Formats: sequence, C-alpha cells, structure tokens
Amino acid sequence: MEKHINKAKTLIEAIPYIQSFRGKTVVIKYGGSAMIDEEIKAMMMQDIALLKLIGIEIVLVHGGGPFINETLHRMNKESKFIDGLRVTDKETMEIAEMVLSGKINKEIVNDIEKNGLKAVGISGKDGMTLKAKKKIVNGIDIGYVGDIVDVDTNLITCLLQCGYIPVIAPIGRDEEGNTYNINADYAAVAIAGALNAQKLVYVTDVKGVMEDINDPKSLITLMTVNEAKKNIESGTIYGGMIPKVECCVSAVEKGVDTVHIIDGRVEHSILLEIFTQEGIGTMFK
Amino acid sequence: MEKHINKAKTLIEAIPYIQSFRGKTVVIKYGGSAMIDEEIKAMMMQDIALLKLIGIEIVLVHGGGPFINETLHRMNKESKFIDGLRVTDKETMEIAEMVLSGKINKEIVNDIEKNGLKAVGISGKDGMTLKAKKKIVNGIDIGYVGDIVDVDTNLITCLLQCGYIPVIAPIGRDEEGNTYNINADYAAVAIAGALNAQKLVYVTDVKGVMEDINDPKSLITLMTVNEAKKNIESGTIYGGMIPKVECCVSAVEKGVDTVHIIDGRVEHSILLEIFTQEGIGTMFK
Amino acid sequence: MEKHINKAKTLIEAIPYIQSFRGKTVVIKYGGSAMIDEEIKAMMMQDIALLKLIGIEIVLVHGGGPFINETLHRMNKESKFIDGLRVTDKETMEIAEMVLSGKINKEIVNDIEKNGLKAVGISGKDGMTLKAKKKIVNGIDIGYVGDIVDVDTNLITCLLQCGYIPVIAPIGRDEEGNTYNINADYAAVAIAGALNAQKLVYVTDVKGVMEDINDPKSLITLMTVNEAKKNIESGTIYGGMIPKVECCVSAVEKGVDTVHIIDGRVEHSILLEIFTQEGIGTMFK
Amino acid sequence: MEKHINKAKTLIEAIPYIQSFRGKTVVIKYGGSAMIDEEIKAMMMQDIALLKLIGIEIVLVHGGGPFINETLHRMNKESKFIDGLRVTDKETMEIAEMVLSGKINKEIVNDIEKNGLKAVGISGKDGMTLKAKKKIVNGIDIGYVGDIVDVDTNLITCLLQCGYIPVIAPIGRDEEGNTYNINADYAAVAIAGALNAQKLVYVTDVKGVMEDINDPKSLITLMTVNEAKKNIESGTIYGGMIPKVECCVSAVEKGVDTVHIIDGRVEHSILLEIFTQEGIGTMFK
Amino acid sequence: MEKHINKAKTLIEAIPYIQSFRGKTVVIKYGGSAMIDEEIKAMMMQDIALLKLIGIEIVLVHGGGPFINETLHRMNKESKFIDGLRVTDKETMEIAEMVLSGKINKEIVNDIEKNGLKAVGISGKDGMTLKAKKKIVNGIDIGYVGDIVDVDTNLITCLLQCGYIPVIAPIGRDEEGNTYNINADYAAVAIAGALNAQKLVYVTDVKGVMEDINDPKSLITLMTVNEAKKNIESGTIYGGMIPKVECCVSAVEKGVDTVHIIDGRVEHSILLEIFTQEGIGTMFK
Amino acid sequence: MEKHINKAKTLIEAIPYIQSFRGKTVVIKYGGSAMIDEEIKAMMMQDIALLKLIGIEIVLVHGGGPFINETLHRMNKESKFIDGLRVTDKETMEIAEMVLSGKINKEIVNDIEKNGLKAVGISGKDGMTLKAKKKIVNGIDIGYVGDIVDVDTNLITCLLQCGYIPVIAPIGRDEEGNTYNINADYAAVAIAGALNAQKLVYVTDVKGVMEDINDPKSLITLMTVNEAKKNIESGTIYGGMIPKVECCVSAVEKGVDTVHIIDGRVEHSILLEIFTQEGIGTMFK
Repeated sequence: MEKHINKAKTLIEAIPYIQSFRGKTVVIKYGGSAMIDEEIKAMMMQDIALLKLIGIEIVLVHGGGPFINETLHRMNKESKFIDGLRVTDKETMEIAEMVLSGKINKEIVNDIEKNGLKAVGISGKDGMTLKAKKKIVNGIDIGYVGDIVDVDTNLITCLLQCGYIPVIAPIGRDEEGNTYNINADYAAVAIAGALNAQKLVYVTDVKGVMEDINDPKSLITLMTVNEAKKNIESGTIYGGMIPKVECCVSAVEKGVDTVHIIDGRVEHSILLEIFTQEGIGTMFK
Repeated sequence: MEKHINKAKTLIEAIPYIQSFRGKTVVIKYGGSAMIDEEIKAMMMQDIALLKLIGIEIVLVHGGGPFINETLHRMNKESKFIDGLRVTDKETMEIAEMVLSGKINKEIVNDIEKNGLKAVGISGKDGMTLKAKKKIVNGIDIGYVGDIVDVDTNLITCLLQCGYIPVIAPIGRDEEGNTYNINADYAAVAIAGALNAQKLVYVTDVKGVMEDINDPKSLITLMTVNEAKKNIESGTIYGGMIPKVECCVSAVEKGVDTVHIIDGRVEHSILLEIFTQEGIGTMFK
Repeated sequence: MEKHINKAKTLIEAIPYIQSFRGKTVVIKYGGSAMIDEEIKAMMMQDIALLKLIGIEIVLVHGGGPFINETLHRMNKESKFIDGLRVTDKETMEIAEMVLSGKINKEIVNDIEKNGLKAVGISGKDGMTLKAKKKIVNGIDIGYVGDIVDVDTNLITCLLQCGYIPVIAPIGRDEEGNTYNINADYAAVAIAGALNAQKLVYVTDVKGVMEDINDPKSLITLMTVNEAKKNIESGTIYGGMIPKVECCVSAVEKGVDTVHIIDGRVEHSILLEIFTQEGIGTMFK
Repeated sequence: MEKHINKAKTLIEAIPYIQSFRGKTVVIKYGGSAMIDEEIKAMMMQDIALLKLIGIEIVLVHGGGPFINETLHRMNKESKFIDGLRVTDKETMEIAEMVLSGKINKEIVNDIEKNGLKAVGISGKDGMTLKAKKKIVNGIDIGYVGDIVDVDTNLITCLLQCGYIPVIAPIGRDEEGNTYNINADYAAVAIAGALNAQKLVYVTDVKGVMEDINDPKSLITLMTVNEAKKNIESGTIYGGMIPKVECCVSAVEKGVDTVHIIDGRVEHSILLEIFTQEGIGTMFK
Repeated sequence: MEKHINKAKTLIEAIPYIQSFRGKTVVIKYGGSAMIDEEIKAMMMQDIALLKLIGIEIVLVHGGGPFINETLHRMNKESKFIDGLRVTDKETMEIAEMVLSGKINKEIVNDIEKNGLKAVGISGKDGMTLKAKKKIVNGIDIGYVGDIVDVDTNLITCLLQCGYIPVIAPIGRDEEGNTYNINADYAAVAIAGALNAQKLVYVTDVKGVMEDINDPKSLITLMTVNEAKKNIESGTIYGGMIPKVECCVSAVEKGVDTVHIIDGRVEHSILLEIFTQEGIGTMFK
Repeated sequence: MEKHINKAKTLIEAIPYIQSFRGKTVVIKYGGSAMIDEEIKAMMMQDIALLKLIGIEIVLVHGGGPFINETLHRMNKESKFIDGLRVTDKETMEIAEMVLSGKINKEIVNDIEKNGLKAVGISGKDGMTLKAKKKIVNGIDIGYVGDIVDVDTNLITCLLQCGYIPVIAPIGRDEEGNTYNINADYAAVAIAGALNAQKLVYVTDVKGVMEDINDPKSLITLMTVNEAKKNIESGTIYGGMIPKVECCVSAVEKGVDTVHIIDGRVEHSILLEIFTQEGIGTMFK
C-alpha cells in the first residue's frame, strides 16, 4: 500500500507539468543510440505515448542513422566524391528513401503503436509537406541533397487533429517532383518553426553542452541564444557541436519557445527533461 | 537521477489506465472524513485534478456531513419529530440549503481550483437538474425530503463540454418550485445512471465490504450484483452497510459499468482505486 | 374579441424593440424592494423570462439585501469595528457566503424557473469568474472585502450558449483561494464591461436621478457621462446617489452602451424601461 | 404609466405561448380578403413578423386571388373550355406564373420586409421544390394544371436556417421542365406535411366551420379528423367548405399537429388564433 | 476507342483550369441573343451547369430583353415621356416586375434545372438584397428607375452554401418599400463587387472590343483599366460600347479580378472564355 | 474555334457522369504495366487527378510489381521454399516493405502531385489501418504473409476529409506488432468494403473477362456475381483469372456497388471506364 501511495504522489507531482504543456506542440528530433538500442528505444516510445496521452501534440522527425550506409553497402552501391564531397546520385537517393521512408519511418510507427497509440509515417513528399531545392555547397553540385524552402503544415495539422502522432522522414520535393535528402536536424528546425512549436527536443548521444568536455559536472543547463552565439565565436562550443547549437539558435529565432539537447542514452530522457524542474540536458531559449 | 528515472517509470505504468479511462465519465460521491480532514481533503482534490487533466470527465456529488446539524444547532433551530421520524420543515430546509449550496459546495469548488482546474458548484435546482417529489415514509409526511424523479443532464453536459468539473449539492425541486433535501448517495446513483457513467465511486469511512468485519484481511474486492443481493438476504451484509450496497446495486442496474466503495481515509484513495490492478475497496459490477 | 385585438396590437408594438435588442446582452443588478416584495419579485422574474424568450442574453447580478445581517444576528455573530469601519472576519465571510450563494442566489434561480426558463446560480468562485484582491480602505485592513481585478467570462458565456440565465452572487477569490465579499454594484459594472454588454440596468428603490429630490416630476431621463461627472462635482448629485452614478459612469467608460437606474418598486419596471420610448428611470450613455 | 404597465402585462401573458411554439414550424396559407384589403394585409404581415421574431419558423404559401383573371382579361386572353372544364393552356400558364411569381409573391415579400424582417419569394420551380405531374380530371386533359408528387424541402429549410421567411407561389414542375399551376390549398398541405409542421393555418373569408351557417354563435372551435369525415358524410359540412376541410383532414393525416381555418377579415387574426386559449376559428387535429 | 481516348484527353486538358477556378465566384450577366435563341440558351445553361459541378460558384444576373416591351404593348400600356425621357410609372414598373421576376427569371431557373442542377430565382427585393434609390437624370424624375446604394450579400451567400445557383432579376427596393427597375449591367457590377468575385462575364451580342469595328481580326483580347479609360477618352471606344466598358472598369475598381465581354452568339462561349488560354472576347483587368 | 467548341462539347458530355459520381468513393487497385510504362503511368495519374478534382473520393491501393524481386536479387537475398511454397522470412519482409512503402508508394504520391493535387502515402501500419494475421496455407507456415482481419478506416477518412488522395501499400500488422505482406488485390477488396465504396477498379494487363480468350471481340462487359460464380464452376473463367474474379465477387458481396477489371495498357483507361456508357473492361455487380 505504502508503495502504491508513493506512486500516486509521483503522479500528483506531474500535475503542474501536465497543466503547462497540455495542448502545446513538441517536435522531437529522434536520433543516435536511442534509435538503435532496443531497450532505450522502447522507453522513448513509452515517453512519447505518455506525452500524447496527456494532451501534448507530438511530432517526430527522424534521420537515417547508420542504416542508409549499411543498405548502400549491401546493394554494392559505391559512393562518388567531387572535391572530397560525397555525391547523392539518383540511385543513392532512391536507396536512402527506401531506408528512410520504408524501413526506419515505419519501424518507429510500429514501435509507438505497441503502446496502443496511433502514429502515421510520412515523408516530406506526402501532402507536399517539405518543399526543397538543391543544395549547392561551395559551388559544387553534390546531387540530390536539399534545403527546405517551405513547410506546408496542413498534413501535419490534419493528422494531429485526427489524433495521430506524425512521424516524418526528412525527404523533400521540388516543384518538378525531384526528390531530395534533407539533413534531419535542419528539417526539425523548419518543421518546429512552421508549427510554432512550444519545444524542439534533440535526442542525441551527448549530455548537452559542457563548459569542460572532460568534466561531467560542467553541463550547462540553460543557455540564451545570445550566449550560444558568443560561445561559438569564443570557441567554447566547437567541432561537431557547432551545427547542433546553430540549429537550436535558429529554432528559437523562428519562434520556438525552448530547444533542448538531451542525452538519449539515459532512460526516459524525454520525460526527465519535460517533467522535472532541472531537466537533464541543455535548454536554449 | 536514479530517483527521477523511477518516477518516470511510475508515470509510464499509468499509460494503460489513462488509455482505459480517457473520455469516460466518473461520478464521485464525496463524503465522510475526506470532507473534514484538511490533509486528506487536499489529496483527494489533487486526485480529482489529475483525473480531469488526463481526460476523465469527473462529476462530484457531495452531502452535508456534520455541517448542517452544526448550523441548525447554532441557529437554535430545534427539530420536530413525527412518529420518531425527524421532520425537515421549511426553515430547516432553508438552513440545510444554505449549508449545502452556500458553504460545502463552494468550498469544494475552491479546493479543486487551488490545483489550477476550474470547477462549477451547482445544486439540483440549477438548470432544473434534479426533479424531485416529496418522499413519504410509511405514510408520514416528513417535510421537505425528496426522491429524484428525473435528472436533466443538459447542464452537467454543458459544463463538462466547456471544460469544468461540476460539483453538485443534493437539492431538488418539484414543478411548483418547492425545494427538497435529497439523500446524497441516492442522488449520486440517479446522476451516474442518467449520465451513463463508466464508474461511480463512493468515498466512505469504511474499507469496503468485509467477509468478517473484525478481520481487516477479509475485504471483498469484487462483488457482482447478484452476489450483493444474496449477501443482503443472507445477512452477510447488514446494518448501515445495506443502503450503501443497495445504491451500488441500483447504479449497476441503471447502466453504470462499475461502482466502488472506497476508504476515503487512505491517502490518494481515488487514484489507488482507479490506477492499480487490485484497487483498495470493493468493486460492484 | 375587441380586448384580444387590443392585446395583439400591444404585442405588435413590441416588434421594433425586439428587433433592436435580440442577441444583445443585458446585465441586471437586482436589488432593493424588488428582492423582498413577493409580488414585485414575481413580476420582475416574468420580465426576465420574457426578455430571455425573445432572444436577449440576460445576466443577473444580485446583492445580499438585509438577509446577511439577519442571519449574522440570528447566529449571534457580533461585528468588529476598526476605526469605525466594520470588519468582515472569516466567520462573517462564511455566513455572508452561505446567505448569498446558498439562499438568495438559489431563490432567484427558483423564481426564474417558475416561469419555465432555466437559470444557473453561480458565484465568482465558480469557474474562477471573479478574481479579487483584498480592499484596503484608508490603509485599514477590513478583512475579507475585495475588489475585482479580473473577470473570466468563459463560464458566463458557456452558460449563455447552452441557453441558461446566469445568476451571479458577488463573491470573489484570490489566487491563494481566499474568499472575498464584493460590492454587488461594482461586480455588475465589472461583469457588464467584461461581457461588452449592451445595457446594464440597476434595479433600485429610487425613481432615478432627480433635479430636485422633492419634485417627482424632475426626473432626469437621460444623462451623458460628462453631465454625470459635472453633476457630482457641482453637488446636484450627492449623498448615497454618488457611488451609484459613479458605477454608471464607469460602466459606460468600460464600453457598456447604456446604463439605467430604474425604480424596482414599479410593476414590470424592466419591461417598461426597455420596451417604451421614454423608459421609466435615468439612462446614462 | 398605468397604460404602459397594462401593456407589459399583456406581453407577460404571451410567455406560455412563446414557450410552446418557439422553434416550431407554422405554414400559413394566405388568401381571401386578407390579400386585398390593404389595412388587413398590413396587420397580417405584422403578425407574421412578430411570430418570426419570437422564434417561430414561418412558411407562407399564397394563391393568386382575383389577380390572375384580371390580367388574363387585360391581355385579352380568352379561356377555352372542354366539357365545361376551364383549360390552362401554355399562354394562360405563362400569364398565371407572371402574376403569381412576379407580382403577388414579390408584393408579399415587400410587405413583410416593411416590418424589418427578411423574406424570400420562391415558386415550386426554385430548387425543384414542388415536383408536379399533370392532373387529369375525369379523363380530360385540362392543360397545365398539376398535382404535387413530391416536395423537396431543402430550399425551404436552407432559407429558414439563414433566417428568412420563405414565401411560396404554388407552381410546380415535372421532370421534363413543364410548368404547372397547383391549387394553393393543396400545395400548403403538401408543404406542411413534408416539413412536419406543427401548425397549418388557412387564412380565409369565413369564420370557420359552423354548426348552422346562419348562426354566428355556432362556430365549432375544435374538430377531430374523424368528426370532420363524419360531418362531410352527413352533409353538415357541404358545398365549398368540403375541399377546405378535406385539406385540413389530409394535413393532419400527413403529420401536421393542428390545422386551423381562420377568418382573415378579423384584425390580427393569426395572433388571436395562436396566442389565445380559445382562438378565433376552427381547429382540426 | 480512339475517339473516346481523344475525349479523355480533352477532359485532362481542363485540369489546370479547374484547379484555378474551383471555389472562386463567377458572376454572369446574361443577355442578348443568348436569351432568345433556344439552342444557344440551352448550351449556355450546360456551360453554367458544368462550371457549377466542378466547384465554381456561379451567380447569374439577367435583364429583361425585349420581353418587357412586348408585354407592355400587349397590355396596351402606353409610355409617357418627359423631356424625351421615357418614364417608368407605377403600372409600368409592375408589368416590368411581372416579366422580370415572373417570366424570365423562372425560365432561366427551369432551363438550368433541365441539366440536373438546382437554381433559385430571386429579385433584389428578396432578402432586401438590392437596396436602391430613385435615379434622377438631369434633374428629371423618370419614375421607378433606381440606382443601387447597397448590396446585402447574405441571401446570395446562403444559397451558394446550400448548393444552389442564384439567378437574380435586377429589381431593387428602397427603405419605404418602393420598387425600382435597375439596369442589369450595373446590377451585375454591384453584385460582383460586393461578392468580391473572381470574374464578371458579360454575355453580349458583340465579339468584344475591336480596334476597327469592321475588321473581325482586330479583337482586343486584353485591356487594362487604364487603357480602357484612355480608349474612351480618345474615342476608340465609342457609342453603345462606352457604358459596357465603363461597367467593366468599375467592376475591376470594385475588386473583381477580371471582367469579360464575350459573344453569346458563339456556342459554349462561357466555357471557351474560361477554359481556353486565349478566350474568345475581351478581358479587362 | 471549331476545335475549341468541340472540346467544350466533350466537357458538356461529362456532366451526367460527374453528377453520378461526385461525392462517391472509388478505390483503385493500381498494378501491371500501368505501374511500369512511364507514359501510361503519367496518364493514369492525370485521370486520378481529374476524378479527385470533380469531387470523387479516390483511394489508391498498389502492389509491388516486379520491384520487390529485383531488390531481393540485388541484395543477394535468396528465397527459401517449404513444400514448394516460397517463404517470406523476416529479412524478405523488411526488404519487401522498403520497396513497397519506401519506393513504390512514394513514387505514386510524387506522380500524383505532379498534377498539382496532394497525395499521402501510407501503409496498413499507419494508424493501424490494416490489422492482419499470419496466413497458413495447407497447414504450412510461409512466414510473414498475412490476411486482413480488420480495416480501421479512420486514417483514410481523415485524409479524405482533409482533401488528400490516400495511397496505400498492402502491409499489415498484428497486435504484437509483427509486419505482414498482404496480397494487394485482397487488400483492395477489404478497403473498398470497409469504406462502403461505390466502385472498385482493378487496373490490370488484360482486357477484362473474355468469352473466348482468343477472340478480342468476346469481351464480357457486364457480369453479375451469380454469373461469375457459375462461370468459375463451369470453367469458362479459369487459371489466373479465377482469383481476380473471386476478388470482384467478394467486393460486391461486401457492399461495393460495382467492381471493374480494366486494361491499364489503354490510354486513360480509368476515365474511359467511368466516363463512357460502354466502359472498356468487365463490370461486376
């Protein structure tokens, strides 16, 4: 009985968090170990199910993880390079799309549905959701890699209103019907911005932004957009962390209230971030 | 962190219960110690707030507890008796109504609102919700005591659709506009039946129905309507328990899925009954 | 037949008034003799029923009349005074609330329903309708007397849309859940302003504003807000009339189209004010 | 003042009638002197305006009165007869339609609108409302005279929902697009039946059904369908009254609650019939 | 088969036009030979049916063609003249209204309905759609000829939402209920402007605006409002064409996207104008 | 001009077909050459776009064509056989799903969107649309091949109401979350039945059912369900045609009005079947 009463108290502690976030939109960029480790993945899907059940509008954006390379390898598709940049030719794009839209996307849908909630897997082609154009890097055409030029939120909104959790593969389409691979982190920014989301959560394999990468206690829990920009300039944020943090900054500037980098390797990381005072990662606002 | 993860796990365990009861209607007859002990009362209001927040339609029916007698006493109102039955004359009725609709009802509203949710206190007069007629006991007119002849659920439904928690004082009205005091247990049955509620929960000062009243381990957790009737006949259920159990039987017969007698003295008793497999009291179905 | 035809002609004369006010909101502050004299009260409820039936959205605000003092007296509750100001301590507040929400409010509901229309009695606590804060007069804390700081019109609007006549007791609540007694005249102003009402009608025991208080023919039928302010300054309006007129001025300034002081002692005073060219009292605009 | 208070009392007396008929549908067959006498016509339009304003759904069906013959005469159109039956040839039909749809119908619309309410004049061709077929009398083809085979109520319902008073000229159309003149009394029966109207009121030039046609006091105020049939059989109802009463019987049998024959020459006859206990004509049910 | 496939290809070619105009409002001023030649009329009604079916909101405005004079003549109604201007006295107005609202209007309704779509014929009196005032030409009162002062689009919008094609006779009404004949070309401008229509199409007996009236190849297919004004000033547009072109200019200035003068004598002229790149007449924008 | 007028006439001929099918649901099973030949595919997508534009609710179900085998081959995935039956092991299922949901499904979406209409590609996993169970053939477990046990039409209906064309890959899911490959012909039957579709169209590589397979003129254009059953029994329908015809019979028995086998190799075959009297294939009813 004692045990049960304590559990009831835990539920009661959630009241203010439920009140704050009910009816709000949270975009989750799902990636890293949390996509591969079956146990962690199952817990993340439970978190998503709970958030949806208590009235939060969840939109999931995923990347391809290591699966695209695996399949390219298996299909003996070799990569071309121009000036050191890997090129996504038509066949590579087709294989990437098969993996993103036909494997990962539908697996996530299935994993959510194991918790009794209904998800719908779409790509940016569906309902012309992600309008893209070819990305030119340093004047070099690297093939079917695209930037988002517009997000049509009608399909996402339609699915939310019908009670579904939209799961989005980062694939776009231009007006001629060409298909483009989109960086999932950027896709999440564009989608969260277009939806005027309350939160954007990056599920990653790092604890967040650290003052000193060797000191686990140096996690920065809250950073303003201005601080982030200064930290990039000063070199405190460096290397692979820069594009991630730039996404966070960009999302806040597009109107997202708060953006979070959390460690997907921690059990129930999303719930911990949203339902505790301190959170577990770095929050940008 | 460990502690937080365990709390997250507790929230996750709630998923199947939330899925079962979302959108369903639960009528709670609120009474006994849970109306008097401030700490218990606060916890019960938290339970109600949580249930509402996760999408359960809560309707509260309350009685008058000891407050009516206190006020009658303070106002030097003496009771008349006919053939040993206490008579509710017009003045007694007016005082009872002041206490029920003007004190207890609004206090409950206030207590719920302390948790950030909005409640609306009404009596059966409002929106002509409870149509009553004079109760005649053994051919004796005991004054303004009534039986419910019809429930107009429009006001309750209107309040639920606007997002409020209706709190109902058990006072009815006949076609001429006379006011009647209604037994709150019976009022709860009539309201739950008219709303086609999923659950009716009686918050009481007993553990439930016991096989042996002296053996706390003899609690009967589940009883069918037929068993209940047999137990009354055989004397296993006796004394003050009979009318309570008769209410439970009547509610099931009016279409309420399950009726629960729970011990309001236990902390978070409502959550324990609804969110655990075993529950804490006796369930009738 | 002749008689019936004349009655038909009277109904026909009402056409332009019905056309003007259908769908508009009229807030009525109900008080004075019209709350006590049974015959006058019955007629007023008929007026309200008719106005509702022809499509006017009626909201009733009432005070406590002499009933609160009567009950305080009966319960042997003595009043404390600080610097000559009467103090509403917690117990006084509780008794006042019982009388306002449990007696007067529900009696009005009942009286309206005798005409076949449905009313709902609420106080400012219900749906957190009236947010209040403690009133400090000349630096003295006189207890649980409050000023309205905000009106949440959601509950009133919800009840109107469901077809009910809201009847409001002037009791407010602060964020901590403390209860405050509010002056009913001020509550009516705040509510009419928040609802953007077409009319606010004060049912009083005076004929209206008179040029010469001893000359019944000197009734001023129309006064602008500017004239009212000048008349207060010049002393033409004086004594007990000042706060009433200040309420009228304040309501017009909050966006109410016209505010009326009418004599509730006259039979069918509300209909006479609304359905005749001249009206019977003083109209402010 | 006295006079005004009496008028207010008259309005109050209307409350139960308004409550009974609000939201109900009343079909009025408008004809006889009430179409010609300007004063009577104006009063009838006032009655209709008032009924609409208090929430009754009014549908007007009119005939052609003497205007069709006048116009035929003026246009030197002679009538053909076959076996003593007057034949409506194509040209006669065109002239009748011009008078019905282009003159009478729009005049009624205009007369209603003088009271500030909005009407819409249609014929049975509009929205394919009245589907007709050629009427064959005793095996003789008398031209473009039709019987109604179906009523499509969509247009009438659409206009009512948009707040208009539909005014209907009794002209029908078959599947090939031929135009037919329909007897207005029959058209009213078909329309009232299809709308499942509460009342059908025939505005005529007689007081109603009399026991003794020479004794004005012998008016029968209420007649059941069975009594009506017996009275026709027994000859108590005879001559020109028979088809009128047959219409009343037919309407009741099609589901109209009550059918009324009233004397349109009486001022405000419709209000008198609907808003008084006794009414002024004969009611069938 | 070949033939059928070619027809399918024709349907396919319509896709971009359907996409452009679906849900848009097109007002058609119907007049000239297309009102008289039965074959052309039938084709025009087919065009209208098709446009409605594919989701274009069609509103038809018609004039009286030669029919009013014919009927005046037949009824021996002679015309009065003041200073050379023909006067529309009350009787002339009544006859004109009978012809417009009772003959032409209902014939068009019938002709559309032969294609299985439902139309509703109204005049500007219905729903007080066209508010008019007397037109004074050079200080001379020429009787019941009016200018539109306001368009109440509620009835037209109501009919469109219920799925009907409104057919409007150009008759207006002032506040006193006087009836006025309105020039149909002007009525079409006022209605198209008030509806914020996408297109206004004038069905006429000319090819459009020509550079050289004797050279059929000199048709001007597109003219801006500024060009039109210059062409009137310079005399390129002259005579009877001036008021027509002034209507086109006025409509564009009231917010209509494009206005078209087309030759109603050409088969399926409306479809040709809307569903081909070049169109067949002159388009103003 | 002549040419354009003829095209207009072709559009006009479509009126009765548009009237018949507007608002109806048509399920198209898309397969065979029409999936491979780029030109034919483009025309089919135009047909679908046109049908959607004129108000028909289109739902597309597709199979995998030769693409699954191609990809299995390319990924060096060898097939296992048990008792001569090919087994769909987990890896085969994953590859099949990638091809169906990640390649073919999204290509169809893209091809439709080239015509300016919006499509959404889903599989039976999305929204738990297709509930499946393992198919056991002759007692042998052939792996992840499933039968549909239930269709949840909520997602399809949601997408139709939001204006999208649903494109469905025939993949199902059981309660444990296992994925199954479903025969697309059967999936189409289940979906059309559950949607209560007006039509189910099988796009195939045959002309339809022939009396004599060698005589192209012996096409049977209409067959009742009873005739179909008899023809299977008698051997007139034989070989590979049997399962297709059984699907048609089953769909009619599930409430689909008509089922069509058409030759997808013919240009605009769908339009020809729906918009001509004769159609081009065999219709079952």
